[in-house]
Amino acid sequence: MTELQAIERVGSTIKIVDQTALPATLEYRELATLEAVIEAIRTLRVRGAPAIGIAAAYGLAQAAELSPAPSLKKLTVIADRLKAARPTAVNLAWAVDRCLGTVQSNAQDIVDRLWQEAEAIHDEDRQMCSAIGRHGCELIPGKARILTHCNTGALATGGIGTALGVIVTAHHDGRVAMVYADETRPLLQGARLTMWELKVLGIPARLITDSTAGMLMGAGRVDLVIVGADRIARNGDTANKIGTYALAVLAAHHQVPFYVAAPSSTFDERLADGSGIPIEERAASEITEGFGARTAPSETDVYAPAFDVTPGSLITAFVTEQGIRPGGRKN
Amino acid sequence: MTELQAIERVGSTIKIVDQTALPATLEYRELATLEAVIEAIRTLRVRGAPAIGIAAAYGLAQAAELSPAPSLKKLTVIADRLKAARPTAVNLAWAVDRCLGTVQSNAQDIVDRLWQEAEAIHDEDRQMCSAIGRHGCELIPGKARILTHCNTGALATGGIGTALGVIVTAHHDGRVAMVYADETRPLLQGARLTMWELKVLGIPARLITDSTAGMLMGAGRVDLVIVGADRIARNGDTANKIGTYALAVLAAHHQVPFYVAAPSSTFDERLADGSGIPIEERAASEITEGFGARTAPSETDVYAPAFDVTPGSLITAFVTEQGIRPGGRKN
Repeated sequence: MTELQAIERVGSTIKIVDQTALPATLEYRELATLEAVIEAIRTLRVRGAPAIGIAAAYGLAQAAELSPAPSLKKLTVIADRLKAARPTAVNLAWAVDRCLGTVQSNAQDIVDRLWQEAEAIHDEDRQMCSAIGRHGCELIPGKARILTHCNTGALATGGIGTALGVIVTAHHDGRVAMVYADETRPLLQGARLTMWELKVLGIPARLITDSTAGMLMGAGRVDLVIVGADRIARNGDTANKIGTYALAVLAAHHQVPFYVAAPSSTFDERLADGSGIPIEERAASEITEGFGARTAPSETDVYAPAFDVTPGSLITAFVTEQGIRPGGRKN
Repeated sequence: MTELQAIERVGSTIKIVDQTALPATLEYRELATLEAVIEAIRTLRVRGAPAIGIAAAYGLAQAAELSPAPSLKKLTVIADRLKAARPTAVNLAWAVDRCLGTVQSNAQDIVDRLWQEAEAIHDEDRQMCSAIGRHGCELIPGKARILTHCNTGALATGGIGTALGVIVTAHHDGRVAMVYADETRPLLQGARLTMWELKVLGIPARLITDSTAGMLMGAGRVDLVIVGADRIARNGDTANKIGTYALAVLAAHHQVPFYVAAPSSTFDERLADGSGIPIEERAASEITEGFGARTAPSETDVYAPAFDVTPGSLITAFVTEQGIRPGGRKN
């Protein structure tokens, strides 16, 4: 899967795997305008906290190149539009702000600098994924039965993935007996994307509905849970795909270790705890008429948060590119 | 909703609401043969533990009527076929065995007796639902925010429902501020059926994905959880729709009361605990290509139990037609 590039710079365009077309077809899509980049992030054609950071960084460089006279002022407006595309993952704002930070007002080489910085972010993410995989692998016992949620693999990052990167690395090390993938309602990133990546990689995997995870843990069939993150506060409170919090409670109840794998760019040092993390609400239609069929009465009232916040006290450990950082869970 | 009849005897045919067509259309279907009754149970056109018991009881009477020479021996074979249609809910076997018990070998009035017994089961279930509603209502505080799973209403029973019957009764008593309905993957009985019933009844309700229940409890937005049951062992271990166990663990973690509402026919006195309850596994396609779209790679390995078993120790109380019976949960 290291060959799979979820995002690629091709000259002045940004080539992405259109993740809404998977698993039916592996379609690539070229994003040639700022509007196309924002649309791709909003509609989850490109998704995964690290990947949207990379896409937005390239998007800023491309917008600068397309601008007749790119100035810091203009680019700040563009950066704000990119950052507003999705609110929860901090990597998006982090990547855009980092790129913006390289811009000297009225410098001749604004465009070159921005492309370089975006490529640097992409390269670093690839390396961080490998390092996360290496460090995380130390946490994986032999014959591990691992449960994961959403998609945190090559599709979600610039490299082999975060939580899925750990699983891939452990698989190469011969330690993975079974991966249980939550389908991850409503957009089914687990069923559509994680199961697709695991199949391509030849890693033994079974798909379950999100509500099956608890009974699997109860039956002693899960050795550890590992997930990614969209934003982590200073106290370890972690925003991630809706359902992560329930998994963490279930894991604690069953004394199953619960790990979060994420690059340092996911830590938001400005936030003391998770209460300050903005939680994106998605359209009701993602639940009431997902995938072509209407599955709820018309005008159904829906509560559709895309993320939840897991207290640091329910997390056994964090895996970053720098190593293992203990979480707040003691049992 | 008391007007809605999920099942009705019309002469020698059995008229059911085809629950696979909801919420798009309210379609009735006449079952005129044993094969049609078994197919309807297997494919969940008729579903809900009490409702499949009623349907099977009518199915046995109909089969006797259609048989040129119904004997106890023949009817025992037919009863076994009906009981094998779905394994987990005990009400199915209970109803069929109860009807069979009225049959005297070679009696002239076998057919009449069977129709009478089936109608008695139907009537009693209607009354049990009302009594469950009345008793359960005592557990519901004012302005209650109630979370439920799957469908346990008029569609699932002969009356107003079990867990949903409690909610309906409490609503008439002015106690329901909000019902959160789990969509209930994979077949979405919560989204398709419970939301439909609640809408018809004018009860305030919001649809959530199953994985959102935990964070709602964490946010203090759920006052109690109430669910139905497919089979309850002597020690209180309760088989119910997959995801119930996770809800019970989450409810205990958040000190939210967790109630199970079911008629006495759901208690299987032959079983000391839940380990003896057979758990039906459903087809992988219900998860990988539900509702018309393929949402997982081809040949995806799936684990698709339709039910799980919640230990009695996680249940605050049971609501039956006889009253409130304490469960094993102490906090």
